[in-house]
Amino acid sequence: MKEVMAIIRMNMVNPTKTALAGAGFPAFSCRKCLGRGKKSVDMAVVQSLLETGETPMNPVGEHLTESHRLIAKRLFTIMVDDGQVGEVVRIIIETNQTGNPGDGKIFILPIMEAYTVRTGESTKDAY
Amino acid sequence: MKEVMAIIRMNMVNPTKTALAGAGFPAFSCRKCLGRGKKSVDMAVVQSLLETGETPMNPVGEHLTESHRLIAKRLFTIMVDDGQVGEVVRIIIETNQTGNPGDGKIFILPIMEAYTVRTGESTKDAY
Amino acid sequence: MKEVMAIIRMNMVNPTKTALAGAGFPAFSCRKCLGRGKKSVDMAVVQSLLETGETPMNPVGEHLTESHRLIAKRLFTIMVDDGQVGEVVRIIIETNQTGNPGDGKIFILPIMEAYTVRTGESTKDAY
Repeated sequence: MKEVMAIIRMNMVNPTKTALAGAGFPAFSCRKCLGRGKKSVDMAVVQSLLETGETPMNPVGEHLTESHRLIAKRLFTIMVDDGQVGEVVRIIIETNQTGNPGDGKIFILPIMEAYTVRTGESTKDAY
Repeated sequence: MKEVMAIIRMNMVNPTKTALAGAGFPAFSCRKCLGRGKKSVDMAVVQSLLETGETPMNPVGEHLTESHRLIAKRLFTIMVDDGQVGEVVRIIIETNQTGNPGDGKIFILPIMEAYTVRTGESTKDAY
Repeated sequence: MKEVMAIIRMNMVNPTKTALAGAGFPAFSCRKCLGRGKKSVDMAVVQSLLETGETPMNPVGEHLTESHRLIAKRLFTIMVDDGQVGEVVRIIIETNQTGNPGDGKIFILPIMEAYTVRTGESTKDAY
């Protein structure tokens, strides 16, 4: 079993959810995060983000400089069988790829065990 | 050392904290997340959640359909010795098991090293 | 590749970002969490935190008792090459070490693969 951790644009949460559910991966969690990649943020991009509603967060004490500010992102966590990692990665990339910086990153982590609280069972069906 | 990642109901945060602290596991972090399992959400369940205060979050752009909406959950992260994983899993299951869908999931991830910032030490006592 | 997970004080987000960016690690994500270590919280410390603006969060149902309350923290996630883990850990410790309880913890997790959504590439440069 693997954890697929995907950091994507805020406004791609809904398309990503729809694409995953449509492909038979309805179970996941999603949470807010702030992030940035290796490039300085182009202020023209930030302006367009502001106009499209993908607002960069800028609370006091949480930004470096205008060119290094953090962007509000969404972090998806999807737990899948080893053999399903490739398909989930493909779906996320196809859904989120605009070709512009900030499309996101995907990381694969190992999961050693999983449990369903309702039944107490430790099975492959736990996730 | 292992990371025990538990996704549980919002209103079970306090009982889970009390149970873990009582069993000698006082150290953990807790954060908000949205999530859903493999089943469509029963609207009768959602209604009862609303009445008990476990409100499903439904911000614009973050829900699919009424039957696939995401539920606000809490994500616990507890770092434990390899030999303590079983006990922590058992405590979380016993505390959170109602027998109804949505009780939660537990995942075990490997931790390779741990450091205490205050002392700079890398020891088993870091977590 | 490794995930460096660092749980630090809220008011250390900016110094940590500056230190990491200055050392050539500009890419990371940051999110809110609540947490506590093994010690009971000293109410004098909490009071001083309140005075310095590092407010402990205390929403209904999310605290145990005054002496076991959870503190608002920030969780950094930095993805690095295996050979860079030591340097990143050193930077975080040097920046965050005050010598007082609550300075934070750092955990190292394995990353098995990484992808850049924009290009679809799976390379070392993905993170």
